[in-house]
Amino acid sequence: MSDNVTLSLAEMRELSETILMDNGFNKDHARSITDIMYACQQDNCHSHGLHRLLMCVDSIKSGRIDGTAAPTITDAGPSVVRANANQGMSLLAFQAALPQLIEKAKKNGIAALAINNCYHFSALWPEVEKLSEAGLAAIAMVPSHAWVAPAGGTRGTLGTNPLAFSWPRIGKHPFTFDFATSQFARGEIELYRRAGKALPEGVAIDKDGQPTTDAEAAMNGAMLTFGGYKGSALSIMVELLAGPLIDDLTSKESMEFAQGKPEAPYHGEIIIAIDPNLLSGGKTLANDERAERLFADIIDQGARLPSQRRYIAREHNMKRNAVEIPRTLYEELLTLRKS
Amino acid sequence: MSDNVTLSLAEMRELSETILMDNGFNKDHARSITDIMYACQQDNCHSHGLHRLLMCVDSIKSGRIDGTAAPTITDAGPSVVRANANQGMSLLAFQAALPQLIEKAKKNGIAALAINNCYHFSALWPEVEKLSEAGLAAIAMVPSHAWVAPAGGTRGTLGTNPLAFSWPRIGKHPFTFDFATSQFARGEIELYRRAGKALPEGVAIDKDGQPTTDAEAAMNGAMLTFGGYKGSALSIMVELLAGPLIDDLTSKESMEFAQGKPEAPYHGEIIIAIDPNLLSGGKTLANDERAERLFADIIDQGARLPSQRRYIAREHNMKRNAVEIPRTLYEELLTLRKS
Repeated sequence: MSDNVTLSLAEMRELSETILMDNGFNKDHARSITDIMYACQQDNCHSHGLHRLLMCVDSIKSGRIDGTAAPTITDAGPSVVRANANQGMSLLAFQAALPQLIEKAKKNGIAALAINNCYHFSALWPEVEKLSEAGLAAIAMVPSHAWVAPAGGTRGTLGTNPLAFSWPRIGKHPFTFDFATSQFARGEIELYRRAGKALPEGVAIDKDGQPTTDAEAAMNGAMLTFGGYKGSALSIMVELLAGPLIDDLTSKESMEFAQGKPEAPYHGEIIIAIDPNLLSGGKTLANDERAERLFADIIDQGARLPSQRRYIAREHNMKRNAVEIPRTLYEELLTLRKS
Repeated sequence: MSDNVTLSLAEMRELSETILMDNGFNKDHARSITDIMYACQQDNCHSHGLHRLLMCVDSIKSGRIDGTAAPTITDAGPSVVRANANQGMSLLAFQAALPQLIEKAKKNGIAALAINNCYHFSALWPEVEKLSEAGLAAIAMVPSHAWVAPAGGTRGTLGTNPLAFSWPRIGKHPFTFDFATSQFARGEIELYRRAGKALPEGVAIDKDGQPTTDAEAAMNGAMLTFGGYKGSALSIMVELLAGPLIDDLTSKESMEFAQGKPEAPYHGEIIIAIDPNLLSGGKTLANDERAERLFADIIDQGARLPSQRRYIAREHNMKRNAVEIPRTLYEELLTLRKS
């Protein structure tokens, strides 16, 4: 028996929506969450694919997430949309505010979407790619929980604070990246811990603020940012722009709010969209060619653009109209179905 | 005899303006360039202080920079200002466009300034700090010359591509950072070369794309980005947003344009300004306190906020109303005076 189960794309969607609705999310939430997990799984991003259904169900079981919350979208300024998730998952709020964000960015050149009061578990690249599908460049940032020490520090203060960016390429998949400003993702440390493997140097400190390669000690201590003091500065920027700037929680406040419950972190998110057509004075085509010369020069020397592996997986999975997930995950997911 | 010369702040300003005007910059350019060098020198940022007068004079001597170019400021969209430097130095264009950028950011919540066709030599932090003085958060980016290899690459394609950020703090110096996305600044490699010192590992590759610690080989090869593939992705983002997005040159195009001349790089710059008051729905005070709790938690564990050393130097130099510069630099600068 294979260790993997093959699901058709339609089966994957149906499984996800059913589990979500069986556990208290309404149809709108179930669809918006599924859209993102589907996109991740289709690209073989296993960490943010169907695996996250477990967290969604844990989150709603903890009793604080409103699985039926309708987001409130406000025109908060000529170039600002505010989406209050009203204690629901972030994704429906994002989806509901997206048309207004696109419209404002195209009309004004640049616009921001502030999502507030949301539970958040998802990768950011599917969101910035939605904007580049509309011909816009986009940056997205979220805090998380205070697991990460600032450069020179001894304890967790910052979140894993991912930063995602997407640039639209005419007739091609966009140039997209989405990375944690921590050296490792939280889940990676957990994988090392379960496997009893030593962490590389420079990834974490223990509860006394001392460097450690012990994953258990790291889980009880703090993670470090990537790229030393530069990555640390960047992480603080994410903390500020996706927190106090938009009247929402820092990673430390979010962690306090969670009270140790196994739910998705609760906080805000910021997404900035910029229109290359307006910013280039209508010279989109010439500048698309200029960007393509840059990408070509990178690829020509054997370097990879971020997300290239993801796009290869996407094409493969779309062609065969299926994804593979571990049998253990599949069986665990089946236990969450009630219908 | 001391190796340093002490100049009063007024003497420093007078020296800088005189040298610039003696060498072909008009009064407006001389003042706007001096403002920024003055700010850097006052903060003991020697690399971007009076030292850069040498580059300014070299640049104008090379015959392509227009020392009298008046920038053209255009209202390029509800949230976009365009400043065409018209082949002059960037700083006068920035200064001329600043009021409109502030006005648009405060009115609309977020706005962008695209500076085009400018020669550029300056640190970015004085610019983003001008915006945080006006109560705005700001991000600035510029390309440079194609000295930096992408992660996994073998040759220079990207610039040192600095990213600067400033966050306004009520009653305090702002939270500001300004760093190259290359591991080292170009000038640092040059200092190692002159001193005959070996570079640390991971900073550069030679002309065959092989790792090197030889500074001479690094100057003929390429520098590496900070933080591996994440820093590389960030550098590409800077390249795109400060280049093709705003219809201006990439670092590679800028390097080709320079034809090896010893002048400041010619390209564009992007600055994004965001209004915390509008984005927080008018809750600036409560969110300033929230940001301060974050900063306090960082400092409390013995970590430093970026720019703290700079602010200490500033207070010291303002109090004594003087700066110190190396005697060798001072004497070299005196030879550039013609009046």
